Amino acid sequence: MLGLMQSQPLLISSLIHFAERHHGDAEIVSRRVEGDLHRYTWRDVAARSRQVANTLDSLKLGFGDRVATLAWNGYRHLELYFGVSGSGRVLHTINPRLHPDQIVWIANHAEDQVLFFDMSFLPIVQAVHARCTTVKHWVALCDADKLPADSGIPNLLSYEALLGQQPTGYAWPSFDENCASSMCYTSGTTGNPKAALYSHRSTILHAYAAALPDVMCLSARDAILPVVPMFHVNAWGIPYSAALTGAKLVFPGPALDGKSVYELIEAEKVSYAAGVPTVWQMLLGHMKPNNLRFSTLKRTVIGGSACPPAMITAFNDDYGVEVLHAWGMTEMSPLGTLCTLKNKHLSLSDADKMKIRLKQGRAIYGVDMKIVGDDGTELPWDGKAFGDLYVKGPWIVREYFKGEGGDPLKDGWFPTGDVATIDPDGYMQITDRSKDVIKSGGEWISSIDIENIAVAHPAVAMAACVGMPHPKWDERPIVAVVKKPGAEVTREELLEFYKGKAVAKWQVPDDVVFVEAIPLGATGKMLKTRLREMLKDYKLPGL
Amino acid sequence: MLGLMQSQPLLISSLIHFAERHHGDAEIVSRRVEGDLHRYTWRDVAARSRQVANTLDSLKLGFGDRVATLAWNGYRHLELYFGVSGSGRVLHTINPRLHPDQIVWIANHAEDQVLFFDMSFLPIVQAVHARCTTVKHWVALCDADKLPADSGIPNLLSYEALLGQQPTGYAWPSFDENCASSMCYTSGTTGNPKAALYSHRSTILHAYAAALPDVMCLSARDAILPVVPMFHVNAWGIPYSAALTGAKLVFPGPALDGKSVYELIEAEKVSYAAGVPTVWQMLLGHMKPNNLRFSTLKRTVIGGSACPPAMITAFNDDYGVEVLHAWGMTEMSPLGTLCTLKNKHLSLSDADKMKIRLKQGRAIYGVDMKIVGDDGTELPWDGKAFGDLYVKGPWIVREYFKGEGGDPLKDGWFPTGDVATIDPDGYMQITDRSKDVIKSGGEWISSIDIENIAVAHPAVAMAACVGMPHPKWDERPIVAVVKKPGAEVTREELLEFYKGKAVAKWQVPDDVVFVEAIPLGATGKMLKTRLREMLKDYKLPGL
Repeated sequence: MLGLMQSQPLLISSLIHFAERHHGDAEIVSRRVEGDLHRYTWRDVAARSRQVANTLDSLKLGFGDRVATLAWNGYRHLELYFGVSGSGRVLHTINPRLHPDQIVWIANHAEDQVLFFDMSFLPIVQAVHARCTTVKHWVALCDADKLPADSGIPNLLSYEALLGQQPTGYAWPSFDENCASSMCYTSGTTGNPKAALYSHRSTILHAYAAALPDVMCLSARDAILPVVPMFHVNAWGIPYSAALTGAKLVFPGPALDGKSVYELIEAEKVSYAAGVPTVWQMLLGHMKPNNLRFSTLKRTVIGGSACPPAMITAFNDDYGVEVLHAWGMTEMSPLGTLCTLKNKHLSLSDADKMKIRLKQGRAIYGVDMKIVGDDGTELPWDGKAFGDLYVKGPWIVREYFKGEGGDPLKDGWFPTGDVATIDPDGYMQITDRSKDVIKSGGEWISSIDIENIAVAHPAVAMAACVGMPHPKWDERPIVAVVKKPGAEVTREELLEFYKGKAVAKWQVPDDVVFVEAIPLGATGKMLKTRLREMLKDYKLPGL
Repeated sequence: MLGLMQSQPLLISSLIHFAERHHGDAEIVSRRVEGDLHRYTWRDVAARSRQVANTLDSLKLGFGDRVATLAWNGYRHLELYFGVSGSGRVLHTINPRLHPDQIVWIANHAEDQVLFFDMSFLPIVQAVHARCTTVKHWVALCDADKLPADSGIPNLLSYEALLGQQPTGYAWPSFDENCASSMCYTSGTTGNPKAALYSHRSTILHAYAAALPDVMCLSARDAILPVVPMFHVNAWGIPYSAALTGAKLVFPGPALDGKSVYELIEAEKVSYAAGVPTVWQMLLGHMKPNNLRFSTLKRTVIGGSACPPAMITAFNDDYGVEVLHAWGMTEMSPLGTLCTLKNKHLSLSDADKMKIRLKQGRAIYGVDMKIVGDDGTELPWDGKAFGDLYVKGPWIVREYFKGEGGDPLKDGWFPTGDVATIDPDGYMQITDRSKDVIKSGGEWISSIDIENIAVAHPAVAMAACVGMPHPKWDERPIVAVVKKPGAEVTREELLEFYKGKAVAKWQVPDDVVFVEAIPLGATGKMLKTRLREMLKDYKLPGL
């Protein structure tokens, strides 16, 4: 027997319709590529999203056609989020930090028909356009009079000119909520990039979940600064959840340095910000020497890579900002876990609460997770056993675009490639990427634990722990370290620093290697494969 | 092109699975019919829900069969919520405050196969069981040794005895998320009761929405006291949202007097409570003379009927408890709007914030609403124009069970039967039930405005405004008033009290009628049809 509730597909267009109708005058503030601050409202986003939809119609784009973007976080990108997906096309956000050859590969693989780009990415477009064989239209996100005369891009179009020709009226189509809405390629370090293809249904369910009090806790009272990029996994879904709640949005554009981000937070009374550790490091690095305080910022979500404990403590203790440690993946839309406390924890001491906050957190309803051993059996949730982390849920991939990489699921579960523990309260903690695990004398060593201790040293800017071959122990850990500008620390001092820390003696690295930089991928993650290549002639002390 | 996310139906069983796995030791505390406090955890709810499912299998109940309850808010009722719906049957919660004849009518209409009841409702069951022709099994929610020997109910079963025979293992079935999960009959004052038939999909979407920061703001840190009954519209969905968040639940059982509710809030450190104005009146009535304070309660949702401004002020100003004014209907699962502030309101004065809090609030994402005039055209959102309130969304009925009442929708919108204004910020305010609207000299008078002023008088316990026939003005308002015990007020004093209040002179009632009681329906709402019958011989002064 079927229920008798109204059947209404979960579509992204309903988000912008809702934001326009019920939160029409809530503000969207964007620092533009042009340098100035742009302000308008959800009502304007909605009207211009409909102009985007009409533009795509006029360009003869079909249902399901891919529309690519190379853009910063800003209002035009937001309009494309709703106009492209809302009209039934698939938004393909491209990470501009990828190598041009990779951009060409994924644009061709996605069969992008149009590519919208911020003018700061013109050099990339100039480098790739001739090789992107499916792209019929190149659109610069600027006014007509800002189009360079000699761009070298044939028939380069102006976004503002295109929109200006279109009416703001448009009836969002209704269709199956399982239709594709957007896509994002993983920054796979092995093989070709693979794309997660999100649906309208998965996006709306994720948008509900992401706004929950135990997740990002977003409301109409928030002013949200997504520093996390809209060109990667939809800025953790914030554009959708912001429309769902009618929150004010503040976009940083390309200005991600500490000073710019700090000034934007203060000027726009930002209550909530989301970003990766490297950006927050720049922010704190600007604030500390200048003795600055936050006057409105209450919470920040940190994810993308494990957040160093020292950063969580700094935000929490020094600045009164609650840090929500998060974990997710491109394949997970991206949110999987968030670290918020439970009722039973309310009476704990601050120190004991902090021990929990250091973990990646609990599963959000919609996501289930488990850890499995080498033989595939589920491991206990005792906070000690660690194994491969598997997940499932309605916003997690079942396969990649065009079937690349075959069937990734195992018995319906997606193997994340992370290695983790889960404690009896369901708090998960990543110990490693499975490919970065160090196995010494038959025991696993968590490279993240080793790195967290190193970056807690005042002279260390960044640290990466990798295993090096050893005839007796199979592998022994070493730590590659980037020193802070002007700071000094010796190998011996740093090894001494591990004493008394939460790490067994046999887990302390055998050596410290000082490097100029640690290679980072397009999403800011450390590329340990590349680091191992850099260190291919390295030998452990005494060997 | 379809997205490539995992396809996973939205099923109620996934809520209890989540709560068990990720919040296994969070507490469920129940004041029982037996009088004592019962404590256990989400892990226990899950195990016993599976025993319920096995019990229904053993009773040979089919997929989609209706299972009725006559029960207070308590842990056994919670197990039935998950065990009945999770196993594919339809939970039919019956309001024990209905007249026995009505209970017979709806049990037969629903074709209930089993009826589970709290022992305090044994007299009702004794009065109705012989006429409930489809019910095959009567199950008392008690231990075997508590079954009365001479109940008069043939083959009366004990819930605990039934569950004790069943294993705790059970694989929740997977099926179409649009299948019916539960049902609730409206307390229709005209014609036969009509049932809203909820689906698994509508329940899960509502559970996500209900927990949002702009709605009930539920998290794993909350201890929730649902005073609002589980026998009517699923206690506003709190059982589902509590499982979704892993919150602690505190059930009051039958003890809804001010003293019992207050002591439970304090003993169990309740942070959040939900109820109707009459119950909160009893709570405040107990606290004030005893000079009591709340030590943990932070927020309360009040709905079911319009909350008197004096109550919102008392909670907010005297007790530091945030009042969330809510509006919904049986046909809406039930939440439609909640009154929380927006970012633009944060800088308002307390007095101006209070003006907003008095309204029923903004639409939740998932619900859209509009007000229409007599000719069906949409009216402006100016906070002044008022018209019939229409709603639509995925947790709103499209038709009633068995097609009773025909097609209720108009162009896809459900007419709520309420009359309301909507202001430019989307805040809706109910002015009347459409059938209670008073039309005087061609202008509408809001009976709720008239009542709110009357109950603000210290001697008035309850007030109901109705229109009386008038040869010149068509109708003129009068107010029927119940005085507080021991309090005195005269007709003239009360009419004088309207002076200087926010009501035009021509809207002030023509008369005050003191009554012993105002007739209330099974859900605590004032029955104005019955009041008008009581006053059928009444004549306006001067006529």
